[in-house]
Amino acid sequence: MKRVFGVAISGNCYKVRLALEQLRLPYEWVEVDMMNDGTHTPEFLAMNPNAKVPVLEIEPGKWLPESDAILYYLAEGTALLPAERFARAQVLQWMFFEQYSHEPYIAVARFIVKFLEPTHPRRAELPRLRERGHQALAVMESHLGTRTFFVGNRYSIADIALYAYTHAAPEAGFDMTPYPAVRSWLKRVEASPGFVPMAGTA
Amino acid sequence: MKRVFGVAISGNCYKVRLALEQLRLPYEWVEVDMMNDGTHTPEFLAMNPNAKVPVLEIEPGKWLPESDAILYYLAEGTALLPAERFARAQVLQWMFFEQYSHEPYIAVARFIVKFLEPTHPRRAELPRLRERGHQALAVMESHLGTRTFFVGNRYSIADIALYAYTHAAPEAGFDMTPYPAVRSWLKRVEASPGFVPMAGTA
Repeated sequence: MKRVFGVAISGNCYKVRLALEQLRLPYEWVEVDMMNDGTHTPEFLAMNPNAKVPVLEIEPGKWLPESDAILYYLAEGTALLPAERFARAQVLQWMFFEQYSHEPYIAVARFIVKFLEPTHPRRAELPRLRERGHQALAVMESHLGTRTFFVGNRYSIADIALYAYTHAAPEAGFDMTPYPAVRSWLKRVEASPGFVPMAGTA
Repeated sequence: MKRVFGVAISGNCYKVRLALEQLRLPYEWVEVDMMNDGTHTPEFLAMNPNAKVPVLEIEPGKWLPESDAILYYLAEGTALLPAERFARAQVLQWMFFEQYSHEPYIAVARFIVKFLEPTHPRRAELPRLRERGHQALAVMESHLGTRTFFVGNRYSIADIALYAYTHAAPEAGFDMTPYPAVRSWLKRVEASPGFVPMAGTA
């Protein structure tokens, strides 16, 4: 059986769980102990020398890191990934957008607000993180203004990738009022078959 | 004919040019005028609402942003992308590594060193960027210690994606002495058929 090495409260790990649930694939979840530096043990570094969760164990010795690469691997040949070449590339476009222009701002702001002390010096990063996060949300709003889902008006792993930290943006202090199309899309994702919420979110 | 909207001195744009050259695909290069905010014109934003180069125009009206999504699109069905599902996911793994753990440090440090005034306040970011950049180079060194190329010991778009800013890391002030496996791999990439150098690099 496939195993996921992850952290339940991480949006990047939640993506993998959501895809596995929606694809009705059996899996075992192995919670990594972040309090004790669980991604820097020799066993973990053998799976991912970049010391990050999630890692998908396809079989013992066959490991795949990087949440969006895992999504692509799981979704190939299923309804969660279009068969047509250009549409598949557009799914990747939005997943690279997520990892480069969205997650480094919204997820990092959420981490600082939710998991660090209110007096932590990293709070100084929040204005810049929120500015860039709003830029990403504005790009999504513009795209979703005329579409139901990110690619081909069909639910795909591009939506899963972007849902993970977008729905958690209020936890990072983002006001979602200016993004009605994004808010409608969040509801459509939540209504998709087999949807499960992220651990620890309201 | 395909068109690339790009900036010659950008590593992300160079990736696309290198792949097109190595695949011997005809294309037209459209240099975007960054001095006059050329990614924020209405015409450019219609191609990429995220206002970034490169964009591949497959045909008029059919545009694909995000360098690594473009690489995947171009390489499908060619020798630059493995046919096997897990190997293809590993190619994506390294491309997501590149965009999340490598480019934001090495490319940004290069930009600050190479294109901003020596007294620019952003130079204060360099120590942290270099620390993170060295972490990425160390991950690459560990992986390449026992391999010729990133995935399956065969040259692929994962190598193209990582070559672009790794070979330019010295311009960002990175000392490459601790990375002999990376240096050998750079030479193997440069010896691959159809290789062309990046504009403006020594």
